[in-house]
Amino acid sequence: MPGGLSTDLYELTMAAGYHAAGATARASFELFVRELPATRGYLVAAGLEQAITYLETWRYTPDEIAYLRTVPGLQGADSTFFDDYLRRLRFTGDVWAVPEGTPVFAGEPILRVTAPLPEAQLVETALLATILFQTAVASKAARVREAAGERPVMEFGGRRAHGTQAAMYAARAACLAGCRATSNVDAGYRFGVTVSGTMAHSWVMAHACELTAFSRYLAVHGPRSVLLIDTYDSIEAARLIVGAGLRPGGVRLDSGDLVGLSRSVRGVLDAGGLADTQILVSGDLDEHKVAALVSSGAPIDGFGVGTALSTSSDAPALSGVYKLVEIDRDGTMTPVMKLGAGKRTCPGVKQLWRVYGPVGPVRDVVGLAGEAAPTDGEPLLTCVVRGGVRQQPTRAIDQIRDACRTAVARLPEGVRRHRDAATYPVALSAALERLAANVASELAARDTGR
Amino acid sequence: MPGGLSTDLYELTMAAGYHAAGATARASFELFVRELPATRGYLVAAGLEQAITYLETWRYTPDEIAYLRTVPGLQGADSTFFDDYLRRLRFTGDVWAVPEGTPVFAGEPILRVTAPLPEAQLVETALLATILFQTAVASKAARVREAAGERPVMEFGGRRAHGTQAAMYAARAACLAGCRATSNVDAGYRFGVTVSGTMAHSWVMAHACELTAFSRYLAVHGPRSVLLIDTYDSIEAARLIVGAGLRPGGVRLDSGDLVGLSRSVRGVLDAGGLADTQILVSGDLDEHKVAALVSSGAPIDGFGVGTALSTSSDAPALSGVYKLVEIDRDGTMTPVMKLGAGKRTCPGVKQLWRVYGPVGPVRDVVGLAGEAAPTDGEPLLTCVVRGGVRQQPTRAIDQIRDACRTAVARLPEGVRRHRDAATYPVALSAALERLAANVASELAARDTGR
Repeated sequence: MPGGLSTDLYELTMAAGYHAAGATARASFELFVRELPATRGYLVAAGLEQAITYLETWRYTPDEIAYLRTVPGLQGADSTFFDDYLRRLRFTGDVWAVPEGTPVFAGEPILRVTAPLPEAQLVETALLATILFQTAVASKAARVREAAGERPVMEFGGRRAHGTQAAMYAARAACLAGCRATSNVDAGYRFGVTVSGTMAHSWVMAHACELTAFSRYLAVHGPRSVLLIDTYDSIEAARLIVGAGLRPGGVRLDSGDLVGLSRSVRGVLDAGGLADTQILVSGDLDEHKVAALVSSGAPIDGFGVGTALSTSSDAPALSGVYKLVEIDRDGTMTPVMKLGAGKRTCPGVKQLWRVYGPVGPVRDVVGLAGEAAPTDGEPLLTCVVRGGVRQQPTRAIDQIRDACRTAVARLPEGVRRHRDAATYPVALSAALERLAANVASELAARDTGR
Repeated sequence: MPGGLSTDLYELTMAAGYHAAGATARASFELFVRELPATRGYLVAAGLEQAITYLETWRYTPDEIAYLRTVPGLQGADSTFFDDYLRRLRFTGDVWAVPEGTPVFAGEPILRVTAPLPEAQLVETALLATILFQTAVASKAARVREAAGERPVMEFGGRRAHGTQAAMYAARAACLAGCRATSNVDAGYRFGVTVSGTMAHSWVMAHACELTAFSRYLAVHGPRSVLLIDTYDSIEAARLIVGAGLRPGGVRLDSGDLVGLSRSVRGVLDAGGLADTQILVSGDLDEHKVAALVSSGAPIDGFGVGTALSTSSDAPALSGVYKLVEIDRDGTMTPVMKLGAGKRTCPGVKQLWRVYGPVGPVRDVVGLAGEAAPTDGEPLLTCVVRGGVRQQPTRAIDQIRDACRTAVARLPEGVRRHRDAATYPVALSAALERLAANVASELAARDTGR
């Protein structure tokens, strides 16, 4: 779990600056993704559960504070910042967020923090890293699941994830957005997701003979376990299984021409009376390869997908940011914005509405939090932390997966397309447009007045 | 730190199988990358320090074992596997590895584990995730550092990393392969690397006036601190600094046309007598953008690089594997290999030699561990763990960075090229070629004999 030091130094230099100035006015920051990756028509929000736990457990330990006192960039901070402020620091703010498993789009607030300014600032880095990573993986997983149709997808990518913590959270995100199971045992332990897996090539290679390897495995793990058959020659291995009278629940192919091999292996199994032995495939799969395998009609019963899921390999990072939108100035919450070239932000505390037509969502509206909802608009941001305290129970992954599947299925078909996806319409409300224009012109007037 | 559950389920099903069969013969696995990413001419090995710590601390806690007893895939395991074997399990094997910071290429053993078979198997997933991720980031960082020449590069990518643990290890890997500093405070705390950072746009936006924001920051953190000047208008901000008589150590630009803006800002600063105020730039940089900025002659003194480093965004995963190469059969260490389509492995326990010509390395040779070294060949694999005990002290990141820089600089120029890199020659020794041919034909003969 991330702690107080899971942050960028500038968050601490700013916090020290606010502390020195006595500036602990409340401020609101919003987390959103600037642009969708070129290969995504929608994202699936994920990571909120870990974000809330992080905020609840956020502390600076005495050892961490002792280290911070030695950091050259913090030599200007006075001792009350370390011994008083950081030592007592807890997250006391409010958080509004979109539920995990919800499709979201560019420019939409996924999470909003309102807290005393230095608190809201210090948690930026860990909130971004937590939410953006799981959102990237969940977004990929929803695509893979759609490609696989009713066939189950298992997440197998832990070994290529960005370290062991990333492996565990990638497994979680993949499962909440559609995977039936993961090979990651830690994710099973911590999140209650189903773990699955059988044998590696090394099991076969460790035995002097492939048939011995298969028989020994079934003897320990039950006669209906899954056998990996591509260590030497997949078709020969299928013949070996039939010839020996084994009846595994499934066989797995991990290399080669999966269409051709699955057909040949199916033929051998069926001819040997093993029509109920499933064929599972894996090996550098992604949503495009899964879709091609499905549309080929190959007799494949399930997919193991690794690296593409655990690293969201074609879009490994989201252009997510966490921007100040409002600050208390002399008792008045004042909307603020940034104008820098190409990186303009939108001022004010917002709500996100999904507007439904007869068959599903037709557009989203980003408006001011206090506005009336648009007709047929469902608000997506709800309060998940109030005064530092969690407001909603932890949701089961299965429940999020079901909700996610339904929500993705209702998106316009063009938006769900895996190549050249259509852009889902996201509009700013008239009130938000007016506020942005006003704040921008005030800033311009101030500039001119220098 | 990863633990016993940081693994794929199949490692545990296999371990249970070996336990049931009493199969605890020693075996050797080698970790290597099958192919370089299309955008890499070389990799830089990293992550070994964490891999060793993982092996030293590897345990199954009573809670973890209690969970494993409930996993459906492990119902075939008998109770001695859980209560006796897993409870007492420690890593007792040997590890040979290439030092961190060393350039490595496709097909080269980066790390070798020799241990009782189930031990060597169970640590596969975490070793791969640990080594491959840091190696991916270090490989990217070496390129960025080369592009920047003598100008310092700071790693700023924690917020886009794959979670907070990945942020910390990405910072470590980036620093050991060339970054002068990181913004990640956790990496400073744990690895002693230099942390740096100044202010975010929110600091400026939180103040009613930009000049107040600048002055307050310098008042707390010293008059030579770095100011972020692109929140509204970078050139205006530079004029504001000069006009107010501030003398910051540097200014940072984070958006817009960095060549044009850095020239204009430099002009304003120089005209105002601030010739010694540095200009730092950031904002979605990578080695190509850094190289273009350097060759433009823009007056830039340092680079902050984020997402490209922390996610190795153009090559977020390496095709790394961990393959059984040798196993004790009835007292004889027997080389083994896998033949599966396109994924053939090379049998036997190996050494990796780097062969030097007059100006630097000219080729690598992968041979059998017992072979004589090729002429002018330096062995790269050394023993880092023996009988489960670390054999070498932890190296300082600065020391690895220096060694890495020298080693990368000595590589053939074509190999270091950032686009269309030349392939560095890696040959198998004659003895290894012979062994591979022999093992393959024995396997083929066995197949025919079925």
